[in-house]
Amino acid sequence: MAYLNENYLKLQAGYLFPEIARRVGEFCGKNPDAAKRLIRCGIGDVTEPLPQAAIDAIKRAADELGKRETFRGYGPEQGYDFLRSTIAKADFRDRKIDIADAEIFVSDGSKPDCGHVLDILGDQNKIAVPDPVYPVYVDTNVMAGHTGSSRKDGTYEGIVYMPCTAENNFVPEPPKEHVDLVYLCFPNNPTGAVATRKQLERWIDYARQHDALILYDAAYEAYIADPKITHSIFELDGAREHAMEFRSFSKIGGFTGVRCGFTVLPKTVLAKTDSGKKLPLHPLWYRRWSTKSNSVSYPVQRAAEALYSAEGRKQCRALIDHYMGNAKILRGAFEQLGLKVYGGENAPYVWVSTPKGLTSWQMFDRMLNEINVVITPGAGFGAQGEGYFRVSAFNSRENAEEVARRVKKLG
Amino acid sequence: MAYLNENYLKLQAGYLFPEIARRVGEFCGKNPDAAKRLIRCGIGDVTEPLPQAAIDAIKRAADELGKRETFRGYGPEQGYDFLRSTIAKADFRDRKIDIADAEIFVSDGSKPDCGHVLDILGDQNKIAVPDPVYPVYVDTNVMAGHTGSSRKDGTYEGIVYMPCTAENNFVPEPPKEHVDLVYLCFPNNPTGAVATRKQLERWIDYARQHDALILYDAAYEAYIADPKITHSIFELDGAREHAMEFRSFSKIGGFTGVRCGFTVLPKTVLAKTDSGKKLPLHPLWYRRWSTKSNSVSYPVQRAAEALYSAEGRKQCRALIDHYMGNAKILRGAFEQLGLKVYGGENAPYVWVSTPKGLTSWQMFDRMLNEINVVITPGAGFGAQGEGYFRVSAFNSRENAEEVARRVKKLG
Repeated sequence: MAYLNENYLKLQAGYLFPEIARRVGEFCGKNPDAAKRLIRCGIGDVTEPLPQAAIDAIKRAADELGKRETFRGYGPEQGYDFLRSTIAKADFRDRKIDIADAEIFVSDGSKPDCGHVLDILGDQNKIAVPDPVYPVYVDTNVMAGHTGSSRKDGTYEGIVYMPCTAENNFVPEPPKEHVDLVYLCFPNNPTGAVATRKQLERWIDYARQHDALILYDAAYEAYIADPKITHSIFELDGAREHAMEFRSFSKIGGFTGVRCGFTVLPKTVLAKTDSGKKLPLHPLWYRRWSTKSNSVSYPVQRAAEALYSAEGRKQCRALIDHYMGNAKILRGAFEQLGLKVYGGENAPYVWVSTPKGLTSWQMFDRMLNEINVVITPGAGFGAQGEGYFRVSAFNSRENAEEVARRVKKLG
Repeated sequence: MAYLNENYLKLQAGYLFPEIARRVGEFCGKNPDAAKRLIRCGIGDVTEPLPQAAIDAIKRAADELGKRETFRGYGPEQGYDFLRSTIAKADFRDRKIDIADAEIFVSDGSKPDCGHVLDILGDQNKIAVPDPVYPVYVDTNVMAGHTGSSRKDGTYEGIVYMPCTAENNFVPEPPKEHVDLVYLCFPNNPTGAVATRKQLERWIDYARQHDALILYDAAYEAYIADPKITHSIFELDGAREHAMEFRSFSKIGGFTGVRCGFTVLPKTVLAKTDSGKKLPLHPLWYRRWSTKSNSVSYPVQRAAEALYSAEGRKQCRALIDHYMGNAKILRGAFEQLGLKVYGGENAPYVWVSTPKGLTSWQMFDRMLNEINVVITPGAGFGAQGEGYFRVSAFNSRENAEEVARRVKKLG
């Protein structure tokens, strides 16, 4: 009989969001009337229509595929040049960041990328993740056998957890010990925190000192409002040698169901073999894509490109402003309740302290039962998430305002 | 410094098709006039327009995403129910094959699936592949560390190669030794061979005897013309315990650039831990998808669904008939040349013996230089592919006829 990958058996029951879905489903089954009033601020999924520029681009591309002269079959495995050069120019070179077209790899989203990147990295790497953490960083490492067993508090042996607390503004300190790989995410999911340039410089210093690789998740960079905040790790000297960046169109252009993102891997990032030989990672990442993928659907790549048109940018801006308007309303509501509120200013997530004595899952159940609002319990993101919950600003204005009204009743 | 996955360094230079692209590019650079006459029968990429049913579905879905009431964000990680139930019914239950909707996993193609499946399988498995072989089966195992180094003939230590030769009609015999995982592909890429029901029964017997798992690649099943030939491994008793099947819309509906396929994993397939505990693989595959993916673009899933409509079926049928018409013309041309010709009757690939004394890469170069036709050298698919070349029927009728005319000149 074939052997299975036993590392999967170390995974804790259910990825966070399926578990939320299960509890919500159970509640709705028992309370059909309340179910109708339910407002979901749990999973960070967009709610507003896709930008018209993207729709038009998908339809144009579909029509192109309908004619022999403009039909396209397999595309380049790293993504079409038209999209990669648009990205490299608009997101990087126009902002004076030195990134070549060849350093962009188009993908079907940054969640898959965060997992796939482990394909090209060695199993010996010592890994550090923030706590609370986007569960995908941890779970994909568990699945790849990079951890020991799970402990009672949900953490795994063999991973270095970096506490993100109110005391450090939810920006972790570089660890005292040596690690090879560091996951960072700013603007942060789930806390909504952003790192200052100075804080990121400390991370680059750490990476230099320990010759570490930073896996920088910037999926929410478009939500940064403060002009002093860094959008890309590659704004910093030294990042071209020590970082790889993950980007997504999911939250910029409402692409959670359309599926497109990209990674930035400079050709100057090296990694080593067991015997100490240093080699660039770029050819490995390229090989991974050409062997295991045929890139992203052509109409989807055209849709992503369209987000960079004048019209597309305006429509994305309107989407982001809309969600950030919600964030402000939600922040205000929980502040009025006397709770400590973080995030929601450069990120679409509001991170709120639970009232005294309530665990985050108790708060989840209370909000579900009393005001029929779904939030995400902080404990689902790690031990340090206990005592907090995440409220997503991805909603209609009407729903955000209704949540604000209902929150008052919690008082 | 982070460690890299050293297994990648074992990979031989260039995946086959990038290597062909390099040679063709070099030739075209030096011979711009000949480049204009070039006809590509190399990579198995479709050429004809996408079925109108799929185009209409993509456009309708894009419009749905443009309205708040019909907008969809993240879809179910295993694929939408509308597509999974359509597949399970039309491809399986309507053909009296016992497959449940929940046993279908929608993906962005069977190439990625062939790689991803290794995520859930143990590193201890002994693996058997046909020779010649679709390179992805081997390369993904090399990358996952399931092999030793490569040998001079291109094979890898630690893999069991099953010779597919003219003597066995390119259908491999079950190996004498024990293996845990067997890759089979029928209709075959690259040889165009099909297996009889009796031959597949012998494989199921082997799987039963050795408790092996068959990874059955049926990406070309729609090209089967002979009513006696099996379309799905699940037509056979015992397959529900011993097989997983890979399917693709790439060649059925011209989806190579649209990207959609699926795997079938019955809940009754078990695999074991090192200590001998037997567990179903289905929950691991589900966990893999929910952790590392957000499924396939919504408009693409609607396009795949549309291939099953009355109109879509008719359009797919016309595409397949078109390509099989090409296959007949190409078969005839090489037969006239006095070469031994295989495949091309239940598959879109024609597999041809090289003229005496020519290696397959020499034949590649000769056809490129003399008649400006790109084929795929058999040696690129494995040691047993030496002495053969693959001609793809994916082309316009005009091109297929022109290739036939040019082939005569090779005489």
